[in-house]
Amino acid sequence: MTNPLLNDRDVSFLLYDVFDAASLLALPHFADHSRETFDGYIGLCARFAHETVFPAFKALDEEPPRLVDGQVFAHPCLHDILPKMREVGVFAASRPFDVGGQQLPLTIATAAHLYIMAANPAVYSFAGLSTGAAHLIEAFGSDDLKARYMTPLYEGRFTGTMALTEPHAGSSLADVSTRATPAGDHFLLSGSKIFISGGDHDLTENIVHLVLARIDGASAGIKGVSLFVVPKRRVTDGGLEGNDVKISGLVHKIGWRCLPAVILSLGEAGDCRGWLVGEPHQGIPYMFQMMNEARISIGADGVAGASVGYHESLSYAASRPQGRPVTSKDPRLPQVPILEHADVRRMLLRQKAIVEGGLGLVLQAALCADRARHAATEPERQHAQLLLDLLTPVAKSFPAEKGFESNALALQIHGGYGYTSEYLPEAWLRDQKLNSIHEGTTGIQGLDLLGRKVMAKGGAALVALETEVSAACRRAEAAGVDAAWVIAVRHAGASLNALTRELGARGSAGDVEGMLCHSADYLELFSTYAVAWQWLLQAAAAKEGLAKGGEPRDHDHLEGKLAAAQYWIRTELPKNAALVTLCRENEDSYARMKPGWF
Amino acid sequence: MTNPLLNDRDVSFLLYDVFDAASLLALPHFADHSRETFDGYIGLCARFAHETVFPAFKALDEEPPRLVDGQVFAHPCLHDILPKMREVGVFAASRPFDVGGQQLPLTIATAAHLYIMAANPAVYSFAGLSTGAAHLIEAFGSDDLKARYMTPLYEGRFTGTMALTEPHAGSSLADVSTRATPAGDHFLLSGSKIFISGGDHDLTENIVHLVLARIDGASAGIKGVSLFVVPKRRVTDGGLEGNDVKISGLVHKIGWRCLPAVILSLGEAGDCRGWLVGEPHQGIPYMFQMMNEARISIGADGVAGASVGYHESLSYAASRPQGRPVTSKDPRLPQVPILEHADVRRMLLRQKAIVEGGLGLVLQAALCADRARHAATEPERQHAQLLLDLLTPVAKSFPAEKGFESNALALQIHGGYGYTSEYLPEAWLRDQKLNSIHEGTTGIQGLDLLGRKVMAKGGAALVALETEVSAACRRAEAAGVDAAWVIAVRHAGASLNALTRELGARGSAGDVEGMLCHSADYLELFSTYAVAWQWLLQAAAAKEGLAKGGEPRDHDHLEGKLAAAQYWIRTELPKNAALVTLCRENEDSYARMKPGWF
Repeated sequence: MTNPLLNDRDVSFLLYDVFDAASLLALPHFADHSRETFDGYIGLCARFAHETVFPAFKALDEEPPRLVDGQVFAHPCLHDILPKMREVGVFAASRPFDVGGQQLPLTIATAAHLYIMAANPAVYSFAGLSTGAAHLIEAFGSDDLKARYMTPLYEGRFTGTMALTEPHAGSSLADVSTRATPAGDHFLLSGSKIFISGGDHDLTENIVHLVLARIDGASAGIKGVSLFVVPKRRVTDGGLEGNDVKISGLVHKIGWRCLPAVILSLGEAGDCRGWLVGEPHQGIPYMFQMMNEARISIGADGVAGASVGYHESLSYAASRPQGRPVTSKDPRLPQVPILEHADVRRMLLRQKAIVEGGLGLVLQAALCADRARHAATEPERQHAQLLLDLLTPVAKSFPAEKGFESNALALQIHGGYGYTSEYLPEAWLRDQKLNSIHEGTTGIQGLDLLGRKVMAKGGAALVALETEVSAACRRAEAAGVDAAWVIAVRHAGASLNALTRELGARGSAGDVEGMLCHSADYLELFSTYAVAWQWLLQAAAAKEGLAKGGEPRDHDHLEGKLAAAQYWIRTELPKNAALVTLCRENEDSYARMKPGWF
Repeated sequence: MTNPLLNDRDVSFLLYDVFDAASLLALPHFADHSRETFDGYIGLCARFAHETVFPAFKALDEEPPRLVDGQVFAHPCLHDILPKMREVGVFAASRPFDVGGQQLPLTIATAAHLYIMAANPAVYSFAGLSTGAAHLIEAFGSDDLKARYMTPLYEGRFTGTMALTEPHAGSSLADVSTRATPAGDHFLLSGSKIFISGGDHDLTENIVHLVLARIDGASAGIKGVSLFVVPKRRVTDGGLEGNDVKISGLVHKIGWRCLPAVILSLGEAGDCRGWLVGEPHQGIPYMFQMMNEARISIGADGVAGASVGYHESLSYAASRPQGRPVTSKDPRLPQVPILEHADVRRMLLRQKAIVEGGLGLVLQAALCADRARHAATEPERQHAQLLLDLLTPVAKSFPAEKGFESNALALQIHGGYGYTSEYLPEAWLRDQKLNSIHEGTTGIQGLDLLGRKVMAKGGAALVALETEVSAACRRAEAAGVDAAWVIAVRHAGASLNALTRELGARGSAGDVEGMLCHSADYLELFSTYAVAWQWLLQAAAAKEGLAKGGEPRDHDHLEGKLAAAQYWIRTELPKNAALVTLCRENEDSYARMKPGWF
């Protein structure tokens, strides 16, 4: 049995039954679309993922790219896969018609791309990184830059990168030291960038790096950082020309292995040209205007990786006989599939709750992004933007952290076989680990959530969330969801709000360290709550579906939803109480820990 | 700075200040020893680990063994390492003088071997598996088998394996189907065994497999399984002879890679001879009499792997500048080491609490094993045996599960670098994952703890534990440990005892499924409590040490102990409350989950 990557039925359930994504069709921006074009694109991506991407997974994992004489050579399979991904239209699916896109909602594009991510996150990234780079030029670049670089990126003729990180300044963008010296219509760049995904390969004729650098004389810190287009080959009126971007090394990643991660050396020969995007010294704000979508995409990667692992362990558990029920140990009876054992069911239900709860969270965030840009009224757009900003660090980090646990469970369910490279769970576990690191580590997401998102605008984002959760509670009550679950979610929300006010007061009183000390615990309890909200929504939709009747397979799917919602709300949500106490009492064991004490 | 593998100071603190291991010298069995011979052996193993084993780690990980024409060839480095491990006396360190051992307490041998395990668990296993195989022959075999096979195993001239697992019967030993047909003084074996660690190599002239098989006509289930010595080459009076043990495949493990895991095919040519160990049909009881020590050894592997990862991330965090304090973001100031950031300190303190708490637990279990065999009086021996049986599933699974989390944190602290194979944390993460699988999965440990250990003999083991914890509480109070911590541990113990009685009553009433449904949660809360007990003991010893004065470095070490104890008791222990509720209420989401609902 082949791995379904995602449960098709569940994707449809979430989009249309839980979230009413069809309501997006009423917005002018999506007026040319229909449920058929939505489902058509999802189906196209799913087929591409199943037929082209997934079959190459193992080969791509086993033979990483090679660096030969300063040129990176990608795996031969990719020469077949990338053109097909271009044909599917992945590079510009959610971008407007006028830049050559399909103008699909991000919600629909995300659902569709999840299949490709599940089949291989690194393959998807060739497109995802290109979309991100092109989107920056679209939003802030000149018409000339758009014509030369954005259009070929959206067409998939070029690929793009985000060249932020430097060896001495990983997460600290304030310390970017790559220099940009004015030279007429362009700048001359010099410096080094590391971990640049897709930073070199032989799959397209050009690669466009979006580079953070400091114009000579700019001030220290993030306020002196500007954004540049630095192509591998300059697009001139006469064709492509070399641009003094050297590949000084290849990083040997433990996952996402077909996506080259390179060390770039800019301007070794003094002729690396870059073109400023937008205004000088605005590099960081520009980058952060794209950050929500980038981080939702990482969240989607996390969900996708957890999903493919979940389906693999589910299939294994259903087909692997081993042992007998605890109440019937007669060795003359045949062994039962391990799915019959309570603890295996526990592990599978935990995976399901993480995968499908995370999927809800990621689609919810994408829906907020769509509404923040395209909702009919300004108050609706503002409400959606507040929610989007708030949910982004959660949608980014929850799938990464709990997805890793879920992938570890997938390996565990496979027993000794899971510990071998003959089976795939170990590869997904490696792939998943990246998601807690790139695009801002989990630690940084915690600081972003507690230090910025919940505190901004006098706590307006939490109020916006409360509105949504209240609506979910009412929907759940109307649908006949167990009243105790609704009460538990309401209670957790009240507790979160009270805690946040308390921490905010601590910060306002000048104790910023005390406010942020337990940001990791805060992120965890907030995530658990946000996922409980999603599970309540899914339980409500499941109850609504069951009331309608329908086929037995749908019935099973909906009953499973109720069991997973119960699991999350009764097993995970109660764990928040202890975390709230830690934050509130500001438990100080690591705050007072001195370096010499370790 | 080289990785210390373990903190020497901490090993000494645990052995002599926390546990008073020197008191073992008063027992007749260890009368020939002294503190100097204890420390001498630990130092010898530590030096061997640092100078010989650890430097080869990367080479051994990168080039796994090869199978060529039915013969496995180990990495060339091992031809140098194994003889040195023999010289150190690792193979029989804890065995009696009269079988050629050093008659060291298991406590001391475990502490010493932890260094080798931290340097490379797979290297240690060549010895550990041999000791286990030889010990079975020592305990149950004939004098003839001892002379031919046990002695060369203890001398390290042969190596040994445990050949339990079959392809269709991983964890289910009741389904072992390898056949043993009587043929005079021996049996003819036929069948297949999988995942046999050390099952073939070219490092020693012989390999001795301890094989579970079923004598023709034996009953079904575990009561029909016997234990055999099945050598790669038969030891005859005239020398070594081949024995029809074929290597039909090599398993590609994701860690422990220098230790070959093979598929054995026994008796393809009809001439695979095995010699019965002890009585027929006693294979499983024999194996389980060795199980405590085998499982403590896996726990030690988990602690060792977490320890080497912890020290690596600690050293990285102290030397890697990145970002600035949350209260002082001036970009003109230099970056600070990431150890300064609260969330990095949190991750490191969590690692420390897991590593050193786990170390306490493993040494405590080893101490129980020593006292169970060699204590002066029968009641003391019985008390120690009860505790040993109880603690074994916890000492086996806690380091595996939380050690995996700890190893993931070590990778996380390394950021993008951690995600590369240029750094070691990813390798330790892979190595660690095996410990939740081999020698009984974590799920099986949970069933063992709740279904057997706490219920046996009317709950006598929990009473024995309570005696120990009460003594620890009194010691902590006398030493001036924070009274709130003592109360928290007492309270958690009372809660655990009440829960256990309730679950026991559920089982006695016939609801075995209901009793065992939350065995994973029970194992987790029990483990958290057991480690809290260990941290209370360590806090008491730290307070005692601080009261004595001493050097500033000792002072720092002891202050760190108090902070880690505080962390565990205030951060982890309160999480038990939610788990107790799940067990008590028998939350039924996965119990009622049907296969079609997933």
